[in-house]
Amino acid sequence: MRLAVYQMEAKAGDVAANLASIESAVRKAATQGANLLVAPELALPGYGAGPAMAELAEAPDGASWRRLAVVSGETGVAILAGFAERAGATVYNSALFVDGDKPPVVYRKSHLYGPYERGLFDAERPSARILEHAGMRFGMLICYDVEFPENVRRLAKAGAQVVLVPTALPASDHADFIARKMIPVRAFENQLFVAYVNHCGADARFAYAGLSGIAAPDGTLLAAAGGTGEDLQIADLDPAAFQQAAEQNPYLADLRLG
Amino acid sequence: MRLAVYQMEAKAGDVAANLASIESAVRKAATQGANLLVAPELALPGYGAGPAMAELAEAPDGASWRRLAVVSGETGVAILAGFAERAGATVYNSALFVDGDKPPVVYRKSHLYGPYERGLFDAERPSARILEHAGMRFGMLICYDVEFPENVRRLAKAGAQVVLVPTALPASDHADFIARKMIPVRAFENQLFVAYVNHCGADARFAYAGLSGIAAPDGTLLAAAGGTGEDLQIADLDPAAFQQAAEQNPYLADLRLG
Repeated sequence: MRLAVYQMEAKAGDVAANLASIESAVRKAATQGANLLVAPELALPGYGAGPAMAELAEAPDGASWRRLAVVSGETGVAILAGFAERAGATVYNSALFVDGDKPPVVYRKSHLYGPYERGLFDAERPSARILEHAGMRFGMLICYDVEFPENVRRLAKAGAQVVLVPTALPASDHADFIARKMIPVRAFENQLFVAYVNHCGADARFAYAGLSGIAAPDGTLLAAAGGTGEDLQIADLDPAAFQQAAEQNPYLADLRLG
Repeated sequence: MRLAVYQMEAKAGDVAANLASIESAVRKAATQGANLLVAPELALPGYGAGPAMAELAEAPDGASWRRLAVVSGETGVAILAGFAERAGATVYNSALFVDGDKPPVVYRKSHLYGPYERGLFDAERPSARILEHAGMRFGMLICYDVEFPENVRRLAKAGAQVVLVPTALPASDHADFIARKMIPVRAFENQLFVAYVNHCGADARFAYAGLSGIAAPDGTLLAAAGGTGEDLQIADLDPAAFQQAAEQNPYLADLRLG
């Protein structure tokens, strides 16, 4: 399983431009043999789109999915990208999994952060949905979700080997701590892989911290982007390479809740 | 609240020597105004005491408590130290809280690590007991317990502002990760202080990693001992100094479980 992480500078409000950027990254990842590319939270509308978000929201099988399905089908690379999801009168902060023309799979964010997100989206109830792809089992979370250990544990208990996390981590005093300490700890304490995929650059509302990466079950980083600039990081995920860490840190087997 | 962390080189099987070492550290901490000193896991019998552990086990109000109660009473410093607790036919891996001649308070480890500990001790069911001292609310865990986010969360939900963790972290590839990444993440994700207090040096069975420290709610280290050698680290714990981190990372308020 070869995973591509696309640290992206999205254009707020410009879905066509963002689709083109993702398509370009997918085609590049395909030449390097990737099975799956992950783009950031709200990569299609742009995280900073603000009040335009509701107009930019789409059904899971909307125009963006149709475009990504073609790109995925042509390249053989599956795509996970954040989007604003329209469901009747409700808008969710969601991630769209596209694998050619197979039906789209959606994950909806359960933990919205702060008044900006709560003003634009509804939150979904937390749940553990596992997706199988390229021989591995994936769970999905979005940004703030992964900062709660309960959310990663729920996926680990459901059998996830990899947790995919589109994010929009702003530049702050805590950004490096979250990207470089908390994300590896989430991987280690559950003995799985965590891919944390952020924006870079800035829009009119936010500046983003970059620092996308892929953490392995032993807490090491298999891929690590810098704090600025677009980047396409690629790593092979092989659970067998981390058998020793799994044996020394059997957290799921040893956990007692009462 | 001024906390002292005693990174200690215990003598396996020699309770009298270990009591003398703790007494010396408490008297030194008292001259620096400490309200509480924490010593490592099984500091009284020594973590590596092996099959002698059952003979070295004591009731909470046994001879070691009587000695520590005198030292605590004379200095005004409360003491938390790991000991082997005798309870009828059962032996627990416990921590003893001593505050002068007040009745002793005991925490029993809930998550035993590996065949060595499971061969010597019974595990207690996880629970959240909060202790008030010097104007703050403390929870206790022992070593492997703190590696499970559920155990720290349980204490945070019960109102702990500080989690005290006597430990016996062996030197390994993962020691630095646990002491310097996981412990600060536990503090940050619950917005509380975590004191992680390890052995140093070696006995006939184990070599210890040192790296004791006190992590603050913003994930910084207020105190950090090295990997080798005894050390007495002291820090003031002031929740008001971390109000900004608490406002930006309101994990307990934002957590949704279903």
